[in-house]
Amino acid sequence: MSKETPAATGSVGIVSPRLQRFDEPLELACGRVLPAWELIYETYGTLNRERSNAVLICHALSGNHHAAGFHSSTDRKPGWWDNCIGPGKPIDTRRFFVVALNNLGGCAGSTGPRSVDPATGRIRGPEFPQVRVRDWVATQRRLADVLGIGCWAAVIGGSLGGMQAMRWAIDHPERVRHCLVIAAAMRLSAQNLAFNEIARKAIMADPQFHDGWFLEHGTLPRQGLAIARMIGHVTYLSDELMGDKFGRELRSGSFASGGEAEAEFQVQSYLRYQGDQFADNFDANTYLLMTRALDYFDLARDHGDDPVAAFRQARCRFLVMAFSSDWRFAPQRSREIVDALVGARREVAYVEIEANEGHDAFLLPITRYHDALRRYLERVVPAASSTRGADAP
Amino acid sequence: MSKETPAATGSVGIVSPRLQRFDEPLELACGRVLPAWELIYETYGTLNRERSNAVLICHALSGNHHAAGFHSSTDRKPGWWDNCIGPGKPIDTRRFFVVALNNLGGCAGSTGPRSVDPATGRIRGPEFPQVRVRDWVATQRRLADVLGIGCWAAVIGGSLGGMQAMRWAIDHPERVRHCLVIAAAMRLSAQNLAFNEIARKAIMADPQFHDGWFLEHGTLPRQGLAIARMIGHVTYLSDELMGDKFGRELRSGSFASGGEAEAEFQVQSYLRYQGDQFADNFDANTYLLMTRALDYFDLARDHGDDPVAAFRQARCRFLVMAFSSDWRFAPQRSREIVDALVGARREVAYVEIEANEGHDAFLLPITRYHDALRRYLERVVPAASSTRGADAP
Repeated sequence: MSKETPAATGSVGIVSPRLQRFDEPLELACGRVLPAWELIYETYGTLNRERSNAVLICHALSGNHHAAGFHSSTDRKPGWWDNCIGPGKPIDTRRFFVVALNNLGGCAGSTGPRSVDPATGRIRGPEFPQVRVRDWVATQRRLADVLGIGCWAAVIGGSLGGMQAMRWAIDHPERVRHCLVIAAAMRLSAQNLAFNEIARKAIMADPQFHDGWFLEHGTLPRQGLAIARMIGHVTYLSDELMGDKFGRELRSGSFASGGEAEAEFQVQSYLRYQGDQFADNFDANTYLLMTRALDYFDLARDHGDDPVAAFRQARCRFLVMAFSSDWRFAPQRSREIVDALVGARREVAYVEIEANEGHDAFLLPITRYHDALRRYLERVVPAASSTRGADAP
Repeated sequence: MSKETPAATGSVGIVSPRLQRFDEPLELACGRVLPAWELIYETYGTLNRERSNAVLICHALSGNHHAAGFHSSTDRKPGWWDNCIGPGKPIDTRRFFVVALNNLGGCAGSTGPRSVDPATGRIRGPEFPQVRVRDWVATQRRLADVLGIGCWAAVIGGSLGGMQAMRWAIDHPERVRHCLVIAAAMRLSAQNLAFNEIARKAIMADPQFHDGWFLEHGTLPRQGLAIARMIGHVTYLSDELMGDKFGRELRSGSFASGGEAEAEFQVQSYLRYQGDQFADNFDANTYLLMTRALDYFDLARDHGDDPVAAFRQARCRFLVMAFSSDWRFAPQRSREIVDALVGARREVAYVEIEANEGHDAFLLPITRYHDALRRYLERVVPAASSTRGADAP
């Protein structure tokens, strides 16, 4: 929603992604091994001498490494969280060194279904292994090693990104000082699982999907991917917001008797546009992989299904945030996280934001939300001490 | 949910549908004319001498004329509302003469996309005109004429059926004594419109759809229809019910490291089954038509968008019912109906049922729901007077 241009105050300006190659084999949770792999990432701000001001941004389903700034002076669209990351913004790049990456299995430049398998010379496509949230955290840890970041000042993520942040806190307690979990859940509900399954089925039913080998067939499963995105999109918005935004306005056609053209509602044409845009720019295999990673995530599974036991592994402080109209990851799911953290005697702040934008609210510059984020983060690394270490728990 | 067999107490027993042909031309709201058309219907109970005990059942999206009883002694599945219609049941066939039909444009025997156009000898398919709720009411009125029913004791419908019941009360105030509107709304919300659009897009994207000429191609758009049904199904259930029923139980595969098989959740396999079953038995063109009829329905549109003005046309009494966990037609939508009725100084009773079954609750034998229906209907035609006229407003 930011309308800033590269020149505007508060922008990190022109940024360039970097590609990091890892030649050590990576054993995935599914048991398969990637002998070598790459992660694409961007950084904003400066790492201080003590290396204590680094913040990791974990992305959600369709996110990527381009979280803030612009790729060129003619680039009109900034990174996906530009309203929140930059000088003077809640994640203040005058204070923090911000790292954002494209997760393994993504389609924005990290190794994934669109990359070539050197062993075969073939695009990996559907043969790319199913990665899990814990795999992402493992690869993010290796990136931290390369960048010389022993401990993140904060790991921050919304939605699926919040799941990664929680996994970081549990799997690497010594490497996270603050964990910011926004509009997330400890695991999906049956309804969430159902919507993901329908989205996948829509993709796989598209005859252009070719069992995932669409690139080899020189095509894309556009229609299936568009339907998947439309399903996702409806569940990211609230009924109320859609009502305010579109109501029952017609875009074309009419209800008049004898009208030849079918009436089409604004909301329907908007959704179709969103679906089509997405279908041209996102990889269908990555979409399948990301939704399965969401499905499989279950914070407490390895801890006897006891989230309190899971969070006892953590050492960091937590900020948990939820949005009132989010029905995909409802505030109740965040309150369950808070309850488990309290049970595990961890330090936790909980902020529930009144907002009618649904799940998508976490991406929007809502005043109370950004104020809360800003104030919490001011405590993490005070402005004056951004070149000193600060506030270790 | 009824497990009764034809012999059990409370069943209307073996019933046979009847086909009624209409040779008078029907001008539809869209302006097109059907020169002749047929409706398939069933009746349960006996019409009294005064013809004052007739009840019309209006079906929802995927319903039909077979609302109660069995078609043969070996038939294992009763009609879709068998738990509510029968001797001693809320819609008591010892008292009422119940009429249930398949709406025009349906695929269960009434004229619709699956029937042959005598003018061309060809299956009508996608050329069947888009009918509207008002068209259904107009055709139901002609059926009432044929059956000699001058005034319905009650018109009853859930969901899309409730929209027909309201339209009856407004378009033919002299022919309805009681209007029972269950889990309905005066018009769809933007979110409802969005889900319908996605469902239609899934059907139309299926290569077996052939622009609606699938029968001529000897095929069915099974995958698209299955996806459409899955979307519908998720929105008919509540998150809570799905959680209770399925949780995150796996049906196959495992989360164990190195597991080869993809984990599949129970809820996903259940949905897939529901979708596949539906796709074998329902017509895709009818599905498109029914969802568009839902989209276009807007009770107050012809009355300056003022539902109070709309309901001032009505003369009957109203019972409005809603279910707490229904998020497709939330209780708020029913309360809006009640508010408009109160504004129009109509007599209305409102019953909100605590139930966690979501929108589908209206089809289930929930005690408080059935008790309320039963008590309301006892007032409509008292038992002793089922052969006399009673309770005219």
